[in-house]
Amino acid sequence: MIFGSPLLARLVSQFKRMPGIGEKSAQRLALHVLRSERSEVEDLARTLVEIKDQVGLCEVCANVAEGPHCTICGDTRRTDDSICVVEQPQDIYVVERTGAFHGRYQVLHGALSPLDGIGPQDLKLATLVQRVRTAGSREVIVATGSTVEGDATALYIGQLLGGLGVRVTRLARGLPVGGSLEYLDEATLGRAFEGRADV
Amino acid sequence: MIFGSPLLARLVSQFKRMPGIGEKSAQRLALHVLRSERSEVEDLARTLVEIKDQVGLCEVCANVAEGPHCTICGDTRRTDDSICVVEQPQDIYVVERTGAFHGRYQVLHGALSPLDGIGPQDLKLATLVQRVRTAGSREVIVATGSTVEGDATALYIGQLLGGLGVRVTRLARGLPVGGSLEYLDEATLGRAFEGRADV
Repeated sequence: MIFGSPLLARLVSQFKRMPGIGEKSAQRLALHVLRSERSEVEDLARTLVEIKDQVGLCEVCANVAEGPHCTICGDTRRTDDSICVVEQPQDIYVVERTGAFHGRYQVLHGALSPLDGIGPQDLKLATLVQRVRTAGSREVIVATGSTVEGDATALYIGQLLGGLGVRVTRLARGLPVGGSLEYLDEATLGRAFEGRADV
Repeated sequence: MIFGSPLLARLVSQFKRMPGIGEKSAQRLALHVLRSERSEVEDLARTLVEIKDQVGLCEVCANVAEGPHCTICGDTRRTDDSICVVEQPQDIYVVERTGAFHGRYQVLHGALSPLDGIGPQDLKLATLVQRVRTAGSREVIVATGSTVEGDATALYIGQLLGGLGVRVTRLARGLPVGGSLEYLDEATLGRAFEGRADV
């Protein structure tokens, strides 16, 4: 039993379930908790439960939201005239920092990956066609990563929206091949927005 | 505001206070929480609080303990005849896996580092002299890392215990210089135990 404490062992195994956390990191985190101020740990525990209570996904775009709509869909200065499709909520944050896009988003929460058994039904795509139809959107920019999965997803969305009269584009191949959107610098991503091409 | 959710932003900043967790990792962890089952997150929150309630440090050796004594100090087959001094609780776990040591431990929770303002009063050393005196210990093995701080700590403990008739040793320089104990393999650490030398 690690550290001779079943409770600490339980916390280590709970941390290990999180993405990017291995055995050593989980041990360090658990010992950090043990050494932290009680109030700080209670705050963390409270935030965790409050998030499950109060934070969900936007009914329109599947971005993170406190309430039915995210702050971007609730922003009346933005419209569905231009919709940027991203894989993950954190990708919105990166795109926003470029200042290159002023429309709204659609968050897929994944990308097509037949090998991993991830098909269209596993992506948050259901509202997209309806949004494009209702708003008569001018353009859908597919800002998925420059990966096999990102390419497949872009192709699929291009077919899905075909015949709706909307221009479907992808970010320019300024993205490093094999890289995911999350780690891009603003300048590169800004240029990729400028050079976007039809699917 | 990241993700447009003050609650999620708060969780990100709480995760960022943990060791080895940067902005990107904290975002990933927070989104992982958002996607996890509610029961799983509640379990984590409960474990965090329970640890602050029920887990502390052993009154004898400062190892992690549920109750006044850790499982090693509570093990009657072990004695203070031989005491192994380590920097961190997780170092005990590594030493135990070598099977090279069957005595008890003293956990310092740090190492001497004048540049960082860490002096002897910041280490859990208070009980060590008394333990050696009471038990008439035969040997104190200083298993601090092979770093400037580890060396300084070993030297200090050698002086502290001088005149008590106890042999004070250090692990053999089988440790890679500049490395910390936590990442050693069992074989290397086992040999370092065999080749330990007087301070």
